[in-house]
Amino acid sequence: LDAGAAAAAAAAMDGKVKPLGSLGELERLAARVAGIQGTAAPHVGCPALVVCAADHGVAASGVSAYPQEVTGLMLQGFASGTAAVGVLARQAGARLVVADLGVLTPPQVAPGQNEVLDRRVRAGTASSLEGEAMTLAEAQAAVAHGIGLADLLVDGGADLVGLGEMGIGSTTTASALTAALLERDPARVTGPGTGVTGEAMAAKVAAVDAILRRHEGARGTWDVLARMGGLEVAALAGVVLGCAARRVPVLLDGFITTTAALVASRLAPASVDSMIAGHLSPEPGHAVLLDVLGLDPLLRLGMRLGEGSGAALAIPVVRSAVALLAEMGSFADLGLAEERPTA
Amino acid sequence: LDAGAAAAAAAAMDGKVKPLGSLGELERLAARVAGIQGTAAPHVGCPALVVCAADHGVAASGVSAYPQEVTGLMLQGFASGTAAVGVLARQAGARLVVADLGVLTPPQVAPGQNEVLDRRVRAGTASSLEGEAMTLAEAQAAVAHGIGLADLLVDGGADLVGLGEMGIGSTTTASALTAALLERDPARVTGPGTGVTGEAMAAKVAAVDAILRRHEGARGTWDVLARMGGLEVAALAGVVLGCAARRVPVLLDGFITTTAALVASRLAPASVDSMIAGHLSPEPGHAVLLDVLGLDPLLRLGMRLGEGSGAALAIPVVRSAVALLAEMGSFADLGLAEERPTA
Repeated sequence: LDAGAAAAAAAAMDGKVKPLGSLGELERLAARVAGIQGTAAPHVGCPALVVCAADHGVAASGVSAYPQEVTGLMLQGFASGTAAVGVLARQAGARLVVADLGVLTPPQVAPGQNEVLDRRVRAGTASSLEGEAMTLAEAQAAVAHGIGLADLLVDGGADLVGLGEMGIGSTTTASALTAALLERDPARVTGPGTGVTGEAMAAKVAAVDAILRRHEGARGTWDVLARMGGLEVAALAGVVLGCAARRVPVLLDGFITTTAALVASRLAPASVDSMIAGHLSPEPGHAVLLDVLGLDPLLRLGMRLGEGSGAALAIPVVRSAVALLAEMGSFADLGLAEERPTA
Repeated sequence: LDAGAAAAAAAAMDGKVKPLGSLGELERLAARVAGIQGTAAPHVGCPALVVCAADHGVAASGVSAYPQEVTGLMLQGFASGTAAVGVLARQAGARLVVADLGVLTPPQVAPGQNEVLDRRVRAGTASSLEGEAMTLAEAQAAVAHGIGLADLLVDGGADLVGLGEMGIGSTTTASALTAALLERDPARVTGPGTGVTGEAMAAKVAAVDAILRRHEGARGTWDVLARMGGLEVAALAGVVLGCAARRVPVLLDGFITTTAALVASRLAPASVDSMIAGHLSPEPGHAVLLDVLGLDPLLRLGMRLGEGSGAALAIPVVRSAVALLAEMGSFADLGLAEERPTA
């Protein structure tokens, strides 16, 4: 974080024609973007959303309300523009980039539809209940794909990157990663995901617990990531690392993308400085992760869809904060340097 | 509220390709806009922000961190487009309409600047500490101007109207109105406003208390409104009434506009059905009002600026909710009527 740029932006915000601090979170947000971008004149002119998708072997064990085939079907919806994130990306004026890191059934993209980038590492992970979800080399390949996606976006002009994901079974994987990396009780960081309840919810907690016991010999972030998955989590961690290296703010979505942010923070602690939390999911592990990362979410709309929906909705908030810094008049403009509250 | 339209929208939302309820507040919001507009296909194609400004006689008693002249100066900023609400209206793609209900020093609007509509009832209210802020006829004229502004906007195509205000001393007036209409302790509904602290804050609470004692003989909503002011609060109550009559959703901003909404709800209880709370202000009276009105704010960004800043930031959220309903694919589209969670 460029503390000088952040301080200069904060001072400029204090000089705007308004009571001190009256723009609340937007003031801190504008200064944070300035610090990330390393300029007192931050900009959000070209926001992008990157959605990484992959399948999870653990989904075969009935931890989700949906079958694994839905991952591929949802990718079809991303391609056709009818999925929630497509609608929200258009609303936010954001470029939407979708990458397949390894879904079981790759989507059939028709001419004229949105491209789905082929970044397939393998056809879904193996079940972390039965063994390693992927090899270390595969985890590294997925992270490298994420870094490459960040470079692709930033080279294309992106100055704010929102994260999204798709993958049936992903909340089970994210709960296992969160419990393992933070040494938390699985029951505290496991939630309903797409909507499991009752006995199915108890079975999901038991599955997360079993994953932890199966891999209690795991040592270090890379080993935990490879053993538990998922391919899209690894890729999103790479996107965070790539954006951080390029000084581009990363807007987190829900529980899965924030798990990827935790992985990134373990691989490169300074990457936390580039993160902005878009939305708080009701998934219980999400608040735990944000607390550990020291991030306060901009929105709390009770969404638990993923796809990047929370990040997309937060884009106008970030853009507005930066626009206020750029476009509002100052007391100095009015020749009213002393027109400040004295109380 | 058209319960049939709201239910049809909710059913259509349930059929979208996503887990049931996974879009959280956005699902309830889309159904509410449907119920207000009286159609299962709600639309936010032409949002507007209306900012009403006026001066408050009580401001001469030192209840604000700023002198009264600032109201007129801020209107200049609304005209030139450099005020916060101007920036945020552009970001939201909203038409901005500013009306002068009675500022002490009317702004000098240069050619090419945004118009400030002349709806002046009188040059600021009298001090409610010393007598009636305005006459009943003046309060009625201000409410009528508000109804006329709503008609102007709706005739111009507006299908969502956000509220904003400007007036030094307005939080003192709003606290007095809230305490009087809800029979609450002034200390519980009085806050720092533009930034008063310490002894000045104690003096502000004492002023609100004195206003209440001065007018303890007030009877009924109109009498309380005329005695305590303000002109912009009366006009904004009229905007709410006018929008409700035209079935156009009204997006509330902070404490002042929500006080106007309370006044409207007392004059026409059904008008509450047309309200959407945009943002929760830290001003303590705001949460009290929203609770009484039964409204849950979309955003909590700690802003306490007014001007319509919170309403402007909420416009993309409302527009996104409606766009999801209109543009997302459904399970029926995919021939997957049974593809729902069974857990």
